[in-house]
Amino acid sequence: MSKQRVIIEHVQPVVDGGIYRAKRTVGERVDVTAHIFGDGHDHVRAQLLYRMQGRKNWTILPLRHLGNDEWLGSFYVTEQGICEFTIHAWVDHFETWYDGIVKKAKANVEVSLELREGALMLRQLAGTTNKDLLLLAKKLEDTERYQESVESVLSQAFAEIVHDYPLKEHETTIEYPYEILVERQKALFSSWYEFFPRSASLQPGKHGTFKDCQKLLPRVAAMGFDVLYFPPIHPIGKVNRKGKNNNVNAQPGEPGSPWAIGSDEGGHKSVHPELGTLEDFRTLVKEAKKMGIEIAMDIAFQCAPDHPYVKQHPDWFKVRPDGSIQYAENPPKKYQDIYPFNFESDDWKNLWDELHSIFVFWIEQGVSIFRVDNPHTKAFRFWEWVIGEVNATYPDVIFLSEAFTRPKVMAALAKVGFQQGYTYFTWRPTKSELIEYMDQLVNGPSRNFFRPNFWPNTPDILPYHLQYAGENNFIIRYFLAATLSSNYGMYGPSYEFNENVPVEGKEEYLNSEKYEVRHYDWKRTNRMTDIISLVNRARKENEALQSTWNIRFCAIENGNIMAYVKATDDLKNIILCVCTMDPNNTQSGYVQVPRDVLRLGDKVNLKLHDLVSHEQYTWTQEWNFVELNPHKLPFHLFKVEIHESNM
Amino acid sequence: MSKQRVIIEHVQPVVDGGIYRAKRTVGERVDVTAHIFGDGHDHVRAQLLYRMQGRKNWTILPLRHLGNDEWLGSFYVTEQGICEFTIHAWVDHFETWYDGIVKKAKANVEVSLELREGALMLRQLAGTTNKDLLLLAKKLEDTERYQESVESVLSQAFAEIVHDYPLKEHETTIEYPYEILVERQKALFSSWYEFFPRSASLQPGKHGTFKDCQKLLPRVAAMGFDVLYFPPIHPIGKVNRKGKNNNVNAQPGEPGSPWAIGSDEGGHKSVHPELGTLEDFRTLVKEAKKMGIEIAMDIAFQCAPDHPYVKQHPDWFKVRPDGSIQYAENPPKKYQDIYPFNFESDDWKNLWDELHSIFVFWIEQGVSIFRVDNPHTKAFRFWEWVIGEVNATYPDVIFLSEAFTRPKVMAALAKVGFQQGYTYFTWRPTKSELIEYMDQLVNGPSRNFFRPNFWPNTPDILPYHLQYAGENNFIIRYFLAATLSSNYGMYGPSYEFNENVPVEGKEEYLNSEKYEVRHYDWKRTNRMTDIISLVNRARKENEALQSTWNIRFCAIENGNIMAYVKATDDLKNIILCVCTMDPNNTQSGYVQVPRDVLRLGDKVNLKLHDLVSHEQYTWTQEWNFVELNPHKLPFHLFKVEIHESNM
Repeated sequence: MSKQRVIIEHVQPVVDGGIYRAKRTVGERVDVTAHIFGDGHDHVRAQLLYRMQGRKNWTILPLRHLGNDEWLGSFYVTEQGICEFTIHAWVDHFETWYDGIVKKAKANVEVSLELREGALMLRQLAGTTNKDLLLLAKKLEDTERYQESVESVLSQAFAEIVHDYPLKEHETTIEYPYEILVERQKALFSSWYEFFPRSASLQPGKHGTFKDCQKLLPRVAAMGFDVLYFPPIHPIGKVNRKGKNNNVNAQPGEPGSPWAIGSDEGGHKSVHPELGTLEDFRTLVKEAKKMGIEIAMDIAFQCAPDHPYVKQHPDWFKVRPDGSIQYAENPPKKYQDIYPFNFESDDWKNLWDELHSIFVFWIEQGVSIFRVDNPHTKAFRFWEWVIGEVNATYPDVIFLSEAFTRPKVMAALAKVGFQQGYTYFTWRPTKSELIEYMDQLVNGPSRNFFRPNFWPNTPDILPYHLQYAGENNFIIRYFLAATLSSNYGMYGPSYEFNENVPVEGKEEYLNSEKYEVRHYDWKRTNRMTDIISLVNRARKENEALQSTWNIRFCAIENGNIMAYVKATDDLKNIILCVCTMDPNNTQSGYVQVPRDVLRLGDKVNLKLHDLVSHEQYTWTQEWNFVELNPHKLPFHLFKVEIHESNM
Repeated sequence: MSKQRVIIEHVQPVVDGGIYRAKRTVGERVDVTAHIFGDGHDHVRAQLLYRMQGRKNWTILPLRHLGNDEWLGSFYVTEQGICEFTIHAWVDHFETWYDGIVKKAKANVEVSLELREGALMLRQLAGTTNKDLLLLAKKLEDTERYQESVESVLSQAFAEIVHDYPLKEHETTIEYPYEILVERQKALFSSWYEFFPRSASLQPGKHGTFKDCQKLLPRVAAMGFDVLYFPPIHPIGKVNRKGKNNNVNAQPGEPGSPWAIGSDEGGHKSVHPELGTLEDFRTLVKEAKKMGIEIAMDIAFQCAPDHPYVKQHPDWFKVRPDGSIQYAENPPKKYQDIYPFNFESDDWKNLWDELHSIFVFWIEQGVSIFRVDNPHTKAFRFWEWVIGEVNATYPDVIFLSEAFTRPKVMAALAKVGFQQGYTYFTWRPTKSELIEYMDQLVNGPSRNFFRPNFWPNTPDILPYHLQYAGENNFIIRYFLAATLSSNYGMYGPSYEFNENVPVEGKEEYLNSEKYEVRHYDWKRTNRMTDIISLVNRARKENEALQSTWNIRFCAIENGNIMAYVKATDDLKNIILCVCTMDPNNTQSGYVQVPRDVLRLGDKVNLKLHDLVSHEQYTWTQEWNFVELNPHKLPFHLFKVEIHESNM
């Protein structure tokens, strides 16, 4: 029972009714929407209140009615932390009265009584302090000045008073404010390059070291990447070690898979001796940082049979009736080189603490980004806890979820805290699939918690459409990854150098680097390297490319060409991407300029500058011809300027 | 922090996260769905638990995985009250083990250790009491009987054991059970007839009485209606009384609008003296009940200026600065004959109590259904409270919301408790609009709380498509209302007798009965009357027509014909409606039988019997010819029987 007359429903952004936090990064806009309505015909008004958690004062702004009882208020989050917001809504008798008296006065109805009612409300709003309103109230009460009062009520100044003085009574509020987690910008904008440190040597046949990696930093920086991600750098299990091409038994001297972690040389807090020392690693991290590169570390919570944990904490694993430890299985397949942790262990609290300490250990070595291997095979509640704990102390730390799994599981990991996630981009080769997938990501419910990171390949995945494919295919998939999504990455040297031979019938690389040391000609650059450098530079210099959420696909009547615009809210930076899906033939068509996004008037007058080819065009029509010869360049990356006469 | 490994999300039916209750009527099916998943590849199992609130024991049934981590469990609610349900889900190691050992055994992998693991789980499941399981465990442990044990695990009997013995550990549950409000069947299935008691006299020129109404009961019963709804029966205000055609000043002797309630003769708990006495009314209610008819009473919470409340409780209204009471307005229009209650009154609690007492008063006179006038102009929280209070004592009482208003407001009234609501059916004249609207109602989120009641007309609304329209139009709209929706009603005599003359340019009746006493030839019946009687009989005799939720539209390649099937879950009752939208010309086309709904095999063999025309057909094809001559009958109302050879 209450006198509240307004209902507030369907508030957004809210994730699962507030169980999880919606996410944004610093600088992003938050569009708060809600269904708000009252009974009857009285005017409803609503306010959005927000503040950083812990602050005292709310920033207040009016919500705007969009129609159909849907309301909107927008603001920008400007610092990391938890931003709280809430909504107040009420029946505003002052605005209702104002609307009525204006209509009556315009219809020449006598309004003496209405003026007296208005004066009462002005007094209520004025309290004892606002002399202007009190004076106005007096005027409205003065029957001698009826005509003057009516004119005053009809004036623009009075409309502004009504706008500026909400008469809040019997407000409806939300029980608890909703929370938005605001994270650093890199959670939304990052360019990842992956290589195996052991393949970093410039000398063929030599096992790479952290020092070799250090020598490659300028190369990675020159291409414009800002995250360098290494597969696990820990000692590799010797027991049941896997050989070349996933052979069950390694030959002597074979290096094994870095994901089989731990041996007598140490576990998750040690480095593989052949890579160098912990000191070397710290130096590498520091040097990388100087070049604007953060080292991302692979965290794979599993153990080789000879990992020290197995002896020290057999109870963290599943012990079988014969006392042996349960290895990983996908019956009838067996993975005897991997022992999974048992998250249902009786000693689970100590296990969780230890795993937490692994993150802290590496953060203390300078690591600020973790790429987590198969998080969907470990308990969700563990991730929720450990990411919460780590971020409470180190809010800059970013976790990327490598969960190539079912949609709801992928979403759940993002909800419990992963800042970024691998996606299905890897398996979306066609225009229609990509547009549909982008629509899901950008306009679906996961928009508020799942930040995609697009990878055309990984050491695990050489997708069918890249098998035996030519350089043009690789360039097209690269360009799509880097411009559709503001977070993207590549399993670098393999991708750069067009490696395209699979294990027959599988989406895996033949002679996978997972099981052997590779040698790359690190001095080599090629057409792909040049394109990467130019696209990454464009991403750095154009804010429009630093978000995934601002994409708008353009109509084009050629199913082989995709076109999309990304623009900043203020339209100061506008990018138009046009990309052919055909690696072999020249394709052409007419692209429609999205006039609404660019807020164009009747006339189109755009200057386009291709940031890769440096071609320049002027577009004065709504529909404009484009032609892409993939052997020249399969895409346009246009920076668009609206010619002044349009503004 | 916890060992729970399963997430339960997006549970349905739940309204606004559980703020409001989902609704069902006695006998309805509840489909509980949820997204349920765990980490990793272990098997997840889930159970649905439900019970009537206050009972101790839960009924438990397994949820079934439909794919994509979506699960379903269905049950029927069989009694009025609040039904609670919850979900338990867990990683089931017994089922995981079973799946693994079966795969291994089939691949001829040695499974001694697996048998020992299975034995341990069987012992865990057996506790100290289940001797069968203990025996089985012993067998599995007996290494001498290895082959026998493997065969036993591969047997059908073992599969049943796995099914019957969930191994619940570290279960995930829902914090509070969700509630479903189960109401009486009439909330979903009712046929309303509306007339003005003052027009009930058989003698022209005479003011009708309750006794006259009583004489009309057999006529209403013969047509098959089970709710007889009267506009307000209270004393009508004399001050500012409205005249014929909404004239601002009534002439002497004019009866006024019954919605201008209250005079010196009494208020909301009194009856208009010209209609008879309270005793007469009680008798009428009693006699109606004997014929299977419930009297629905109009509740309009507003007062004429001379209503006793105005003197007794001026503080329940808005008092203006000159001491006058605020009448209803839609500036610059004024409604001086109506004073709205002020739900923000300082004395609001007493106001609410008094309004509550009005319902109780009429319930004590035998009324069990209320049609509430313009509920959207009174506070939502009041309705939530008053309907809750009334239904707590009188759970059979049904409230119909007359809220022809915006979608979210309409929905909110249903959420806060109204059992039925008027709808936009009145303004959906075309096939495509009707199909889209039915889809919204049946498949949209309001399915769980909003029960539509379809009215082709009301005393307030003569929609454009019925203005100057012929009998065929009226029959078509009638048939659609009565078969699309299980709740429907009509402003009776006017509709029966094809009244179609509007106030020019408005959707209002000329010479509206709202402002005058009308005389009808109550002895008259016509083609419409016959059709009503037959359709209402079909509704009573065919359970498939007693739900709105079971509709499925059939394909037919003629935009002028609509076809839809309604069937009971057990297919024991199947109705196929085919209706032309063309009142003038014969239309024909091929209707597609919805094979999936009827669970037909390869062959179609249906017997159709038209319950109105008594024509019979046999359909043996998927697509079947229909032809409708509106001058004969603009619809088919087929009872369908699946010929045995199909079953």
